[in-house]
Order: sequence, then structure tokens, then C-alpha cells
Amino acid sequence: MPDKKKTTIVLFSGDYDKTMAAYIIANGAAAYDHEVTIFHTFWGLNALRKDNQVPVKKNLLEKMFGKMMPRGTDKMGLSKMNYLGMGPKMIKHVMKKHNALPLPQLVDMAQEQDVKLIACTMTMDLLGLQKEELLDGIEYAGVAAYIGDSEDGNITLFI
Amino acid sequence: MPDKKKTTIVLFSGDYDKTMAAYIIANGAAAYDHEVTIFHTFWGLNALRKDNQVPVKKNLLEKMFGKMMPRGTDKMGLSKMNYLGMGPKMIKHVMKKHNALPLPQLVDMAQEQDVKLIACTMTMDLLGLQKEELLDGIEYAGVAAYIGDSEDGNITLFI
Amino acid sequence: MPDKKKTTIVLFSGDYDKTMAAYIIANGAAAYDHEVTIFHTFWGLNALRKDNQVPVKKNLLEKMFGKMMPRGTDKMGLSKMNYLGMGPKMIKHVMKKHNALPLPQLVDMAQEQDVKLIACTMTMDLLGLQKEELLDGIEYAGVAAYIGDSEDGNITLFI
Repeated sequence: MPDKKKTTIVLFSGDYDKTMAAYIIANGAAAYDHEVTIFHTFWGLNALRKDNQVPVKKNLLEKMFGKMMPRGTDKMGLSKMNYLGMGPKMIKHVMKKHNALPLPQLVDMAQEQDVKLIACTMTMDLLGLQKEELLDGIEYAGVAAYIGDSEDGNITLFI
Repeated sequence: MPDKKKTTIVLFSGDYDKTMAAYIIANGAAAYDHEVTIFHTFWGLNALRKDNQVPVKKNLLEKMFGKMMPRGTDKMGLSKMNYLGMGPKMIKHVMKKHNALPLPQLVDMAQEQDVKLIACTMTMDLLGLQKEELLDGIEYAGVAAYIGDSEDGNITLFI
Repeated sequence: MPDKKKTTIVLFSGDYDKTMAAYIIANGAAAYDHEVTIFHTFWGLNALRKDNQVPVKKNLLEKMFGKMMPRGTDKMGLSKMNYLGMGPKMIKHVMKKHNALPLPQLVDMAQEQDVKLIACTMTMDLLGLQKEELLDGIEYAGVAAYIGDSEDGNITLFI
């Protein structure tokens, strides 16, 4: 039996539109039977945050980072034409009209399709994000795991 | 006869400088006999717009998107140092001085070299862009075609 | 003896956070015995600038570009939450607290690990950057060299 094809994505961006592109490609590749990994680092970690505040101990700077960054995909802005939040509203409106899945459901679908969602532990440390604040069912790893996953991959992207 | 090498680029960005990087890599790879595909999605679709207004039926939101987004590569801004449009003027000035091809001609050259230019149909729907508004000689496809093209590829980039 | 695995990164961005991601991946891949290349183009060239002013002959526009762009990694801003320079200060503060290597040392480490650092000669021409202004021990090449390096690669990224 031949090995499965592999798609590995580094999700660095925390923008709604780029995160959507990442998850659409991931779900597409999974539907074509690829082994798919999304490695969430820097602002990309925000895609994995629970949308409610979780009571954990933080220092002042970690609290500030926590407040300034969006809690989960639904609160993200656009990389272009954000217009103080009008842009995401417009995009979500047309997505609904065209029956396109909203981003939080694209994340659910990825988990159902066994896309491996990894949170970069180094960035979690830097930004003061703790496991309790992130979605269930994800994995935790560093750059070594990313290299191991992607060096035999077919599609490797940085988004 | 061995298979040709393959380069596939997802062009997500609608910035002049990033689009230029994408087309320079695409033309370079084509010159080295790669089979090259650029899959234009989200703001990257603007690279494929005709530079004149095309009379098509649109709803209000689609008209707004149409007006706010640049019509073709020549009207794009820079990802950095845009300075209300001064940046692109400066870049175009130095490109001319150094005999570098301006972006619209890089797109022409890509078409002459048989680089496959694909417009993402899902994003066309969302942003209300219609075939009549886009360049001739391009193809239309979704994420499945992108996965098919790039899973056997050598160079896979997201720009 | 099998060929070494290859990682090739196009570093287009001139942001502190994205450049850090590029160099962390590059150093990680080098530690796993990959042959690693970072091809610095457009704003990514700034990562290779010496941090002091070097006296070279420039025309007016080249002087302007030279002044507006950061001299070396330590002077870069963030892609998100830059807050007029507060963001980089905060990130550097938490990096120090967590004993993470600051970006200039990540560049040193890459050179020690024989990561090939290439400056894109076409962009050097456009932005008026000269060899004297860039770090010692780097290479100079164009898009053809990039295609040659990455077409047999395992991990290919555009950052």
C-alpha cells in the first residue's frame, strides 16, 4: 500500500481571510486523502483559542497579549479592507448568502477529518497562552516536529 | 521521457510587490521548463481583472467590492511603504530605470510561456467577480484542482 | 549515501516576527541535517543589512529607500500589533525572559550552521542596496538560482 500524500501548513497569520484559506486547503487535501497538519505559530495560535475567557494565572504582559489578540477565528479581522471590522461582517454576510461554511465550522470539519492541529509551544510561552485556553483535541509541539512532518511532504505552505 | 518539474503558486495577496514576486518566480520556473500554475484566490484575483469597467449585473455589495478592489495589477498598492500610492510610483520608476518588466507585462509573459492562470471560482462567487471582468485565456477551478495540481509538485508556495 | 534533504525559503517579508519564523525554521531544518537556503528578496533583504550606515554612492531615491527601510533585523517592526514600535519591545522583552534567542543571534546561528543566505540581486538593484551594506559571508544570486535550489527540495516556503 503506497504512503499517503502529505500536506503541511504553517499558519503564522491571525487574519480571518488567510486562516480561511488555510483551512479550506487543509480540508480539501484531507478530502483527497492527504495526511494533513496545520502547525499554528505566532498569531496563527489565535485560531485555536476558545472563544470564552478561561481563568488562568497570567502576568501583566501576558494579560495584555491575551486581551489584544482575538479569541478564536470568529473574532479575527481581515488582512485587507478590514475597515474597523466592517470587512469581516461583509465577508461573513456573503459567505452565508452563498452557503459557504463560516470559519469556526471549517475548523470543526478539519478536526472531524483528522487534520492534525498543532499549537507551537514556543509561541505559547512567548504570548503566555496556556493549554486550558486552547481547543480540545489538538497537539502541542515545536519546530522539530514540524520539520519531521513536512520533510516528506508533498504540499508545504507558509500562510 | 521524464515528467516535467512542477511549480504551483497560490496567489492570495493583492499587493503589487507580492504579485510581482509571484510572477517573477512563475516566469523563472517556466523558463526552466517547469509546468507552472498560479491559483488566484481572494485578493489575488485582482491580478486577473481587466483594467476597464465591464458592464455586468451586480448587487449592491458586489458593486462595492468591485469598486474598492484594484482593477488589474497596475492599480495595486504595496504591502509595505505604500504611502498613499507614492510607494508604487517610486517602485515603477526604479523598475523602468533598470529596464525591469512592469507587472502587467510579467502577466503577459506568463501567458505566453503557458503558465496556467487559474481563478478560484469560490472566491469569484464571494466577491461577485464574473468571467467577463477577468482576462481572456485563463482557467476556472476550485480547491480540488489546486490539490491535484500541486500534490505532485516540486515547488509549492503560498504568496 | 543518500542525498541530504533540502529546505528553501523565500524571505520576502521585512517584519521582525515573520523573519524570526523564517530563521527558526531554517535553524531547525539545519539541525536536522537539511541543506537550507534562505533567498532574501524585496523587504526580506533588510535582514541582511549591516546595522551601521555604510558610506556608498547613491542617488536620491536610493538614499530615501535606504533611510526608510530598517538597517538589520533588530530595527524591524511587527506584522501585527506593532503599536509604533511598542510591539517589538514587548516581544523582545518576553523573548529575553524565556531565554529565546533574539533575531540577530538567530541569523548568526544560521551562518554558523551553514545555512546559505542569498541576497536577490534584482531587488538589490531596484532598492539601491550595495554589497558593502550587507553582511559578510552571504551569496548573491537571481531567481534562476532559487529555482535550481528549490526544485529538488523537500520543504519550500514563501514567507
